Amino acid sequence: MTTGGLFVSFEGIDGSGKSTQARLLRDHLRGAGHETLLTREPGGSPGAEEIRALVLQGDPDRWSAETELLLFTAARRDHLERTIRPALARGAIVICDRFADSSRAYQGRGDRRGMVDSLHALMIGVEPDLTILIDMDPEAALSRAKARATAEERFEDFGIALQQGMRAAFLALAEEFAPRFAVIDGNRAPETVARDVAATVGARL
Amino acid sequence: MTTGGLFVSFEGIDGSGKSTQARLLRDHLRGAGHETLLTREPGGSPGAEEIRALVLQGDPDRWSAETELLLFTAARRDHLERTIRPALARGAIVICDRFADSSRAYQGRGDRRGMVDSLHALMIGVEPDLTILIDMDPEAALSRAKARATAEERFEDFGIALQQGMRAAFLALAEEFAPRFAVIDGNRAPETVARDVAATVGARL
Repeated sequence: MTTGGLFVSFEGIDGSGKSTQARLLRDHLRGAGHETLLTREPGGSPGAEEIRALVLQGDPDRWSAETELLLFTAARRDHLERTIRPALARGAIVICDRFADSSRAYQGRGDRRGMVDSLHALMIGVEPDLTILIDMDPEAALSRAKARATAEERFEDFGIALQQGMRAAFLALAEEFAPRFAVIDGNRAPETVARDVAATVGARL
Repeated sequence: MTTGGLFVSFEGIDGSGKSTQARLLRDHLRGAGHETLLTREPGGSPGAEEIRALVLQGDPDRWSAETELLLFTAARRDHLERTIRPALARGAIVICDRFADSSRAYQGRGDRRGMVDSLHALMIGVEPDLTILIDMDPEAALSRAKARATAEERFEDFGIALQQGMRAAFLALAEEFAPRFAVIDGNRAPETVARDVAATVGARL
């Protein structure tokens, strides 16, 4: 959806290091003189952060998968309108920790992928210019995620089977949307991963 | 969507007396020995009431029409799953103060009716068995609504032009969905209106 700027999303399972890599990319691009905006989902705008709190706090079973999908989509719409689009319009590079592919992977499980796609087409209709998938061994990612888990991090409560399923889901999305995706091996030192990320983004600038 | 019970919604402009009539109908049906559930939108379940507060409190411009529509739809989905469907399944008469027709009339203004309908079909997919439209003179309704306005009642801030437009929108919906709608003249004493409502519902039991 480039309109002057560049819209880059990071995806990956919890504990894959994608948030660290998003931050390192921001620092690198800033150092090179680019205007950048680092943001995240769910959240990324004041309204969307309120919706995030509503979804992620409290009993994990308080919302059905469908209601949760609607709430995440409301947060994404607000984030897009209030944060992402204005930044792209002024020519910034927007770096977003998770975007619609996370909904496809997490909320689109089972037979809900069609619903996720229809809702996305109807209410969002935008993809990043580039999506960086930090691919990581599920066991290693899980222990990293557990080590820094907070009350909010519900997604990690499902253990290794979920991590494996989510890794497979992200790799399948990378194939489905191949021209948009870059898959980067996250099983290496953060600086090494960051160099690959910077090279991949640099090639699109 | 009858599954044993009966799903009755009340619609109308603010100040039309629909909430009073919903309550009077509940009292009447209860008196006649029916199991009833009186509920309202947005809200009607613990989660949906939290979403209601998020949408209706604070600056009216904090959400775009599209984000607001997504939040109302999330609330409706939760309300349907947690309150309406279980009550219908046990054979109750569910009386709901506003349902999807309010989204069609309010959020579906301008060129958004298609979006409202698509989202409804995708995520809700259910209509009441009977919708009672309390039709009321917009000026009289507006002064009644203003007299009891609370901080939450944003819809009433737009004055007589909005009230007239909304009355026309509800009457158009009553024509579009004719077999489901009953239009009842609300410009009369509440007891008189209530008698008509009770007769209309009685005919469907």
